[in-house]
Amino acid sequence: MVCQLEAVAAAESLDQAFHALANPTRRAVIARLGKGPATVSELAEPFDMALPSFVQHLRVLEASGLTTSKKKGRVRTVTIRPASIRRAARWLAQQRGIWEQRLDQLDDYLATIEEPSQ
Amino acid sequence: MVCQLEAVAAAESLDQAFHALANPTRRAVIARLGKGPATVSELAEPFDMALPSFVQHLRVLEASGLTTSKKKGRVRTVTIRPASIRRAARWLAQQRGIWEQRLDQLDDYLATIEEPSQ
Repeated sequence: MVCQLEAVAAAESLDQAFHALANPTRRAVIARLGKGPATVSELAEPFDMALPSFVQHLRVLEASGLTTSKKKGRVRTVTIRPASIRRAARWLAQQRGIWEQRLDQLDDYLATIEEPSQ
Repeated sequence: MVCQLEAVAAAESLDQAFHALANPTRRAVIARLGKGPATVSELAEPFDMALPSFVQHLRVLEASGLTTSKKKGRVRTVTIRPASIRRAARWLAQQRGIWEQRLDQLDDYLATIEEPSQ
């Protein structure tokens, strides 16, 4: 039961991470945060977007667990949470692993039926 | 201009791929298809879901470019398209690359300030 609940929580966390990544503004923010923490104004600067809309994107990122933020005085600083992105990356890498194994098996099979070319 | 259009198309394709992956049923279908093509009924079998709802998930996957399908008589067979998932995996791997480089730099820095422990 605990194990099942953990599986549900893990699936929900992947749902939210992939949902958060399904938007070019949010991906650009993640790419920027990969270089280090940044304030909301620094993050908003490159975007031609009203601040409330931009802040909404930051909220989606934080709700998904991909980022976290801290307010000091009037300045909010956003930081990336590598573990969540690592989880999403790991899921995709696993899928790739399955195909690549299949392609290797196909290569092996083709090698066995290949006629010597001389 | 062409280059800009290509960048927009690439971003849209990532949007759709991540959106498609933001759902546990669709991720389970992708994981299943990693083992090889399957018919719609074979794919639907493990899910306790009305067929029209399930088919809707297959449509989202196909629209995102993650899968393709072919109908022969009354049977539709679905196949994975590795290139799209590879693109999403590559984007995530790039983000990881950026952090890991930063962590390495931090390690190097810590090594320079570390006092010998004897």
